[in-house]
Amino acid sequence: MAVGSFSTDWLPIAGIDISTIAAGIRYQGRDDLVLIRCSEETAFATLWTQNHFPAAPVMVAKQHLESADTRYLLINSGNANAATGSEGFRDAIACCQTIVEHLGGEASQVLPFSTGVIGERLPLAAFEAASASLVNALGSKDWLDAARAIMTTDTRPKIASRQLTFGGKTVSITGVAKGAGMIQPNMATMLSFIGSDAKIAPATLQLMLSEATRLSFNRITVDSDTSTNDAVVLMATGQSMVAVDANEQDLLEFQDALTDLMLELAHGLVRDAEGATKFVTVEVNKASTPEQALEIAYSVANSPLMKTAVFASDANWGRMAMAVGKVPTAFDANLVDLYIGDVCLMKGGIRNTEYREADGAAVMAEEEILLRIDLNAGDHGETVWTSDLSHDYIKINAEYRT
Amino acid sequence: MAVGSFSTDWLPIAGIDISTIAAGIRYQGRDDLVLIRCSEETAFATLWTQNHFPAAPVMVAKQHLESADTRYLLINSGNANAATGSEGFRDAIACCQTIVEHLGGEASQVLPFSTGVIGERLPLAAFEAASASLVNALGSKDWLDAARAIMTTDTRPKIASRQLTFGGKTVSITGVAKGAGMIQPNMATMLSFIGSDAKIAPATLQLMLSEATRLSFNRITVDSDTSTNDAVVLMATGQSMVAVDANEQDLLEFQDALTDLMLELAHGLVRDAEGATKFVTVEVNKASTPEQALEIAYSVANSPLMKTAVFASDANWGRMAMAVGKVPTAFDANLVDLYIGDVCLMKGGIRNTEYREADGAAVMAEEEILLRIDLNAGDHGETVWTSDLSHDYIKINAEYRT
Repeated sequence: MAVGSFSTDWLPIAGIDISTIAAGIRYQGRDDLVLIRCSEETAFATLWTQNHFPAAPVMVAKQHLESADTRYLLINSGNANAATGSEGFRDAIACCQTIVEHLGGEASQVLPFSTGVIGERLPLAAFEAASASLVNALGSKDWLDAARAIMTTDTRPKIASRQLTFGGKTVSITGVAKGAGMIQPNMATMLSFIGSDAKIAPATLQLMLSEATRLSFNRITVDSDTSTNDAVVLMATGQSMVAVDANEQDLLEFQDALTDLMLELAHGLVRDAEGATKFVTVEVNKASTPEQALEIAYSVANSPLMKTAVFASDANWGRMAMAVGKVPTAFDANLVDLYIGDVCLMKGGIRNTEYREADGAAVMAEEEILLRIDLNAGDHGETVWTSDLSHDYIKINAEYRT
Repeated sequence: MAVGSFSTDWLPIAGIDISTIAAGIRYQGRDDLVLIRCSEETAFATLWTQNHFPAAPVMVAKQHLESADTRYLLINSGNANAATGSEGFRDAIACCQTIVEHLGGEASQVLPFSTGVIGERLPLAAFEAASASLVNALGSKDWLDAARAIMTTDTRPKIASRQLTFGGKTVSITGVAKGAGMIQPNMATMLSFIGSDAKIAPATLQLMLSEATRLSFNRITVDSDTSTNDAVVLMATGQSMVAVDANEQDLLEFQDALTDLMLELAHGLVRDAEGATKFVTVEVNKASTPEQALEIAYSVANSPLMKTAVFASDANWGRMAMAVGKVPTAFDANLVDLYIGDVCLMKGGIRNTEYREADGAAVMAEEEILLRIDLNAGDHGETVWTSDLSHDYIKINAEYRT
């Protein structure tokens, strides 16, 4: 069902070791638990869900980040350990403990991440049984194994790498992500772990992650729902010995590569969205303000009627106009042009007299669709990406738990 | 597919004559055009779509209301005459003209209403061909015929009546409504026409309609989409000779009956929502403010993941917590209790220890479901109504135009 092609190429990151295992937390016959070890001196940047019911691992990871030097990330799929109260909180700490029992150190040096079903206790026994093998295998598994092990309703692993050269020295970035639904602006049900061997100070790293997230994971939407477990982690091990924050030019180059990599991962989430049959780019141009551009872009991208029209390959420009028009902020409807791809459907607020249904049908039949809205009211633009709303979205989400 | 039972009882309203006809505007073998004639001295109150692309008939009707004494309502289904520009505007006036050619008077005494496909020209020839018969049949058809003729994807006509007695004199109210999708707070794709033989001054009538709409059509949501053609019209003919605005007690009694009638119609829209298999009441209690209560109620009612869980009869309280938690306004998650019917799923922000899956499954298996959120933060409450998100929603909306 996924739309387009997914690369499985990746670069190793010096200073990051990976291990994965089939712990049987929920799924059978596949890896579902990942351990990531970072070398000492690794800098961390993190972003977390804004849901008012953050899951236990989110709360524990934030505490651990503040109280100790992080060395490990422990990620499980199949169970989100969310809305599990104080027991869930203790479980999240306990699963960190299973790792340091074999590795030494404090449980607070481990950041826990969970994704999957909400409201069920984490099966601690599965973590305990798997921990020795998981620790022993550190370094034996790769980023693609990690990308696979964190999948829930995903059908494809999402992985991307970038390489840059600074003064003859190479810097690599590799990231993985998971998430196929409950994806709305603020990261939603998604986890992403990105590593680089660049040397970057933590404060700078945090700024870089925020900016790259704003332009990638915060510009995609599948169903407007926001999960309790979202997290994005950026790790800079410094093992390349290249301090990219030493000069502004290098920093900007790294920032661009990071944003580009995260956009590839974000697009991967949309391409693999639950039930997706189309990859949809919604572009709003010539708005009065960036906020207006985003408001309209999301209104179109989240409209169930527009999304079902896209699923049906129906160039239903009436629904597109409806979705543009339903936003709270006023605009001059008589200036608005609507396009699908290069085909102009509406010109100056009314049906384009030269528009022919056959042209609209031709562009809508494609797998990759561009919905373009020109407000002709200013010079601000924004782009968001989404999928269509299909029978399979309902099927997947109606049957996920049962 | 509709949920629950639909009454087809109705009371005639003195001073209102109805005629319907199969004009072949889009549908075959069914009435699709309605003419309503109101006696002189009838007071009108109206509410209109807030979409920034109002359809041509909406713009024309508003102009006609200001420029002449309204006597007729002309309503067609099958074609919305929306996003049709100046041609659509002229078409809307022209179809009013077809009526007064037989009845005398000015075209501006007719209010036009259209619902159906957006972006296509109105087939004026069909109006012209039907107009003589439509006018001749005035008074021969009834409210239930009108309720049927205005249907688009509706599977049931929506009609309701109330009767009150003031000092031995009877006052009646009868209303019809249509709409089965694109239904979000501000009336959305819906038309409703309500008549009464009460005598009420226009300014008072407008206030009464606004208040009743706020508590009925503005408290339902199917898919968060808002149409270009929505309208609610309340007509008071005064033929009962009872001036209900003469004393406050009568006025309040009438207001309550009107709200109750409109709530029945609004619930009818949700019960007949596209693909609906469940009727869902979302009740938020003990909120700090009414705005907070509404924000959370809509977040739950519009969550695609919650709606598919309801479709699957899955007591997925994790998704319910997620949908409550994703609102922008902060609240204390540790105080929140969640219920489905009388079954408590979550107590003080965590899973209720006494909750058993079997209890949740039993209430979710019902056709009528109450989702209750107690914030325990204040004393404000709000209720909204919605449907589930089913395979048939996709099917209906993917295939509507093609």
